[in-house]
Amino acid sequence: MKWVRVSASRAYDVGIGPGLLDLLGVEIAARLRPQKIGLVTDSRVAPLYAARVRAALEQVAEVAEFVIPAGESSKNGQEYLSLLSFLAGKKLTRSDCLVALGGGVVGDLTGFAAATYLRGVAYVQVPTTLLAAVDSSVGGKTAIDLPEGKNLAGAFYQPSLVLCDTGTLNTLPEDIFRDGCAEVIKYGVLYDPALFAHLEEKGLGFDRETVIARCVELKRDVVAQDEFDRGERQKLNLGHTVGHGVEARSGFTVSHGKAVAIGMAIVSRAAAKMGLCKIEDRDRILAVLERFSLPVSTSIPPEELATAALSDKKRAGDTVHLILPAAIGDCRIVPTPVSQLVDFLKAGM
Amino acid sequence: MKWVRVSASRAYDVGIGPGLLDLLGVEIAARLRPQKIGLVTDSRVAPLYAARVRAALEQVAEVAEFVIPAGESSKNGQEYLSLLSFLAGKKLTRSDCLVALGGGVVGDLTGFAAATYLRGVAYVQVPTTLLAAVDSSVGGKTAIDLPEGKNLAGAFYQPSLVLCDTGTLNTLPEDIFRDGCAEVIKYGVLYDPALFAHLEEKGLGFDRETVIARCVELKRDVVAQDEFDRGERQKLNLGHTVGHGVEARSGFTVSHGKAVAIGMAIVSRAAAKMGLCKIEDRDRILAVLERFSLPVSTSIPPEELATAALSDKKRAGDTVHLILPAAIGDCRIVPTPVSQLVDFLKAGM
Repeated sequence: MKWVRVSASRAYDVGIGPGLLDLLGVEIAARLRPQKIGLVTDSRVAPLYAARVRAALEQVAEVAEFVIPAGESSKNGQEYLSLLSFLAGKKLTRSDCLVALGGGVVGDLTGFAAATYLRGVAYVQVPTTLLAAVDSSVGGKTAIDLPEGKNLAGAFYQPSLVLCDTGTLNTLPEDIFRDGCAEVIKYGVLYDPALFAHLEEKGLGFDRETVIARCVELKRDVVAQDEFDRGERQKLNLGHTVGHGVEARSGFTVSHGKAVAIGMAIVSRAAAKMGLCKIEDRDRILAVLERFSLPVSTSIPPEELATAALSDKKRAGDTVHLILPAAIGDCRIVPTPVSQLVDFLKAGM
Repeated sequence: MKWVRVSASRAYDVGIGPGLLDLLGVEIAARLRPQKIGLVTDSRVAPLYAARVRAALEQVAEVAEFVIPAGESSKNGQEYLSLLSFLAGKKLTRSDCLVALGGGVVGDLTGFAAATYLRGVAYVQVPTTLLAAVDSSVGGKTAIDLPEGKNLAGAFYQPSLVLCDTGTLNTLPEDIFRDGCAEVIKYGVLYDPALFAHLEEKGLGFDRETVIARCVELKRDVVAQDEFDRGERQKLNLGHTVGHGVEARSGFTVSHGKAVAIGMAIVSRAAAKMGLCKIEDRDRILAVLERFSLPVSTSIPPEELATAALSDKKRAGDTVHLILPAAIGDCRIVPTPVSQLVDFLKAGM
């Protein structure tokens, strides 16, 4: 197993390896002193792991379990208020903590509840998807969706511990696993030609523990530099501005990972046409996405994509910050006037 | 007019004086560069001041106005989600800002929305009640109530500017003005014998601008020392733990200020019985509360008060931190086992 130490406004450990679920109680007790733990999970994960996690947590504290329906639609305001009321009803205090057992939806919702319940209690991320392990569980971005768009409310609030039991990835449907691979590929494109080459060579057979730990290290370095998303951290949105547009316009039938894959493909093509991205590197990016059976195009018209992408929050006034690859391992933040977005998208479709 | 500079995780100015409403746009533009401003106010304040404030704000930005029903019951989760959706619908971005025009309910709700909309946008407090001017508008505690209790969700999130137009206090019903006086008296008891003596002498005729500025300075010093409420800042809860119990058990028919007055009276009597508070100072505290026509007792049984007070969030596990006066200008944080709370209250009734 591997440990990565993250230093942000709060410093914390990320553990990655098999069997960590059974150590949850012990690892929490080594860092926090809760009398009660609010365990949040979803209807897909609960039947698989909730009993095992409860057993581990009950070694050190009383456990109150809250199960949300699986799926993005649970990351909403009403579920958030229900969770807060649940915690208040169970009388959790500021010295207690929450545990998020599941994917990004559970992690984002639980993190936002932890950030705001009693103006902040500690929480622990236990990601059970590859996507959550390499992305949402680390870095402290928490959120809920509004009817008007994804992740429009939330907080920057770091967890106190992240434990990724790589054993849980074995029960992931391959389709969900591939979603996470889109984010793993993203880290390669952004920062790490060696990671990218490993993915090109191994495809879905990449080394789980090593690759997840490497992605967490890369994210850790970005977060340490720019916790509050004013500069370097925006690069992690490679493929996301366009991807969010794809998700929204598809009515969320296209998953986050696949939408990000489409987004990366579009910005890579557009960046190549602008002369920013090397043709060879554009082709390697498209090829590795296809090797992982991820989509690289969409039939959504560019005008509609632009409208949806602009309701994304990564916008400041009349400018949108696009993240564009120059080469594998070298991406740029390119402030782009809103009025030019449709032409940009057309160049990448 | 007076300016007080507050240094917390964000530094900001608090302006106090007559006519400031008309300078709002100019003062905001000197600090922020919003294209849009979300103006939040309530149904009591809007008819009095919204047009004037809009006119001032429209000098510098487009204004979107959101009016909540006046009263504590608006500080709830549904109103919060409605406000977030309103902001998203008006497409406010991270470079835009909110303005809270009103009392503590408007300020707390708007502050929490600002803390969490797009993970944080700037906001400006424009308190129109004495209570908000000396208490909730400064220091960055934002919150909503849950069905389970007051202020159970929220965030620490500092405003970018506070402007208190003392002219607005003239339109306050005297009963609401007296609510604010309870918090003003609290600052005297906590920190400032001279302020306390001024209140004893002048009663309701105290010097508005000077006293508000002094309270803001005192709060500023506490917040600078302990922004996140782990030590010294807890002292600002003098009278509040018991007061929250009174508010809750009365079904919020007893106002916040009057509940705090009752809370201060109860803890002062109890502290005197414990031998902690000087008898003379206890009597001066009770006398000044009565001079301001504030209540000093309740018919709610101590057992019920204790239960209600314990669902307050200022509790860590089995201990509640009571704030007790030793003398005027000298209060102590006294960790008290939950099991002793009823006896403590009985001693103070």
